[in-house]
This record gives sequence, structure tokens and C-alpha cells, in this order.
Amino acid sequence: MDKFMALAVAEALRGAKKHHGGPFGAVVVRKGKVVAKAHNRVVVTNDPTAHAEVLAIRAAAKKLKNFDLRDCVLYASCEPCPMCLAAIHWARIKKVYFGSCSLDAKKIGFDDELFYEILNGKKKSPVKMVRVGAGKEYLVPLKFWAHDMKAKKY
Amino acid sequence: MDKFMALAVAEALRGAKKHHGGPFGAVVVRKGKVVAKAHNRVVVTNDPTAHAEVLAIRAAAKKLKNFDLRDCVLYASCEPCPMCLAAIHWARIKKVYFGSCSLDAKKIGFDDELFYEILNGKKKSPVKMVRVGAGKEYLVPLKFWAHDMKAKKY
Repeated sequence: MDKFMALAVAEALRGAKKHHGGPFGAVVVRKGKVVAKAHNRVVVTNDPTAHAEVLAIRAAAKKLKNFDLRDCVLYASCEPCPMCLAAIHWARIKKVYFGSCSLDAKKIGFDDELFYEILNGKKKSPVKMVRVGAGKEYLVPLKFWAHDMKAKKY
Repeated sequence: MDKFMALAVAEALRGAKKHHGGPFGAVVVRKGKVVAKAHNRVVVTNDPTAHAEVLAIRAAAKKLKNFDLRDCVLYASCEPCPMCLAAIHWARIKKVYFGSCSLDAKKIGFDDELFYEILNGKKKSPVKMVRVGAGKEYLVPLKFWAHDMKAKKY
């Protein structure tokens, strides 16, 4: 197994053994060096967003003082869920290596695959989305940003 | 405007004026009371995952000491992006109210709509996903979790 992937899998097992959360690990690598590694901490931190990939991205971005990680690669012990995949897109990471897949995660009770099916329209979401209005007042923050020359665009 | 939605929009504008990040705000409400509110902090924290909804969910879960927020409702000044929508699913939130939409965000340069199109298969992703293997060694953490009676399942 590739050394970075082995590290992601070891991190996954370490987190599971510590009962920190689901059995998932991730490593962010830049120019052949580990920038950050993390395992799922949903249970121990009571944070539903504390997936391995999100935590590794957050740690790497903090370390590099840059929310743009386009020169980094992510290794994930298991296929990233839709939340993590979207986070990878926001971080502008261009390549992701993964080992087990969302169907493997499904077999042990995780909803990654279901959420993929919801996001691509194959399954109905349990979340009711209600657009309350499209009035001008909702556009005020967006217009402020668009005209603010000091805003750092991303 | 509904008072919670007004709060989300005010939070969005406040964050933009402080140059903390994109012009987005979110509020988590439980039984008619605000549990947490947040605005986007991507720029000020160098965290690509620091969207308003993610931060509000994290803060609410921390406050309630529970990663399961199924008795909460989310108000977002703008339609949640795919990362935030998946986070909402993981948090088991059942209802989301929002004001402006991902097309409004697109108009001022944000990729929410693009990422939705990527996730539902309409557009090609800039992220190359490489499955490096499906061997037994990748399943070790998952199998440990599945057989661990002490693991808190979620």
C-alpha cells in the first residue's frame, strides 16, 4: 500500500480504537510531504461535520495559512462523503486517492451512499427545503460583497 | 421577514462588513429559540469549510452536546451549498429555510451552483478521484468498527 494511504488507514483505525468517531482517516500531502492528518471525531467532539477529510483540510489550511489547497493531494481511507467531496472542491484540491468505498461504509451503517443518491436526485431527501422569499432584502449581503473592493474574493 | 431569517441575513451582512468571508449567515433554532448563529469565516480563519451553516451546526451541536440536531431547524440567508446541505443531513436537521439562492451566489462569483451540477452529474469535476484498491487491508478499520460493541454508532 502507498505510504500515505497506509497512514490514512492507520489513522482511521486509531480513531476507531479511541472511540473518537467513525473508522475513517485522511491525510493532506503537499509536494510529497504530509501537511496534516486526521481521523473522524464526530462522537468525541459532538460535531457532525468532524469527518476525517474536513478535519485534515481544516488543519492543512490553518498550517499553510491558506484556504486554497490547490497544490495539495488528499488521501482518504474511505471514499469521501458528499460533504467532504464538496469541501475538497471548495479547498480546490485536484486529486483524491481513496481505499474503501461508500458502499463499504453503507454495509456498516453509514449514510454516505444515501446522501450521494439524494444529492444526485435518485432518492428523496428527508430535509424539507423552504425558500421563504426572493425579495431584495435577501440580496443585501450579496450586493454589499459584490461592490466591496476590500472583500477578498474566493 | 421572519425574525430568524432576518437574523441570518443580518449575520451575513455583519460578516461581510467585517471581511470575515463570503456574505452568508445561518441560525440554528430549537423549540423557537436561537441555539447558535454564525457567518462565513473562510477568509479570516483560512478555513475553506468555515461556511455559515457548518459553523452554526458545529456551534449548536457543541452547545447541545449532541451531534444529532434532529429537533432543530436551520435558517440560512442563502441556499446552502452541497457541503452545507450534506452537513445538514449528517446533523439530521429536518427543515431548512433560506432566502437568496445558489444562482444569486453564482452571480457574485461563488461556485455553489457549479458544485451542485458536479454532484448531480451534469458537469465534470475538476477533482480526479482515484480508487487505489479494494483490498482487505482497506476494510480493517471498517470491520473493527462493525464488531466493536463500544463504538457509538451514528
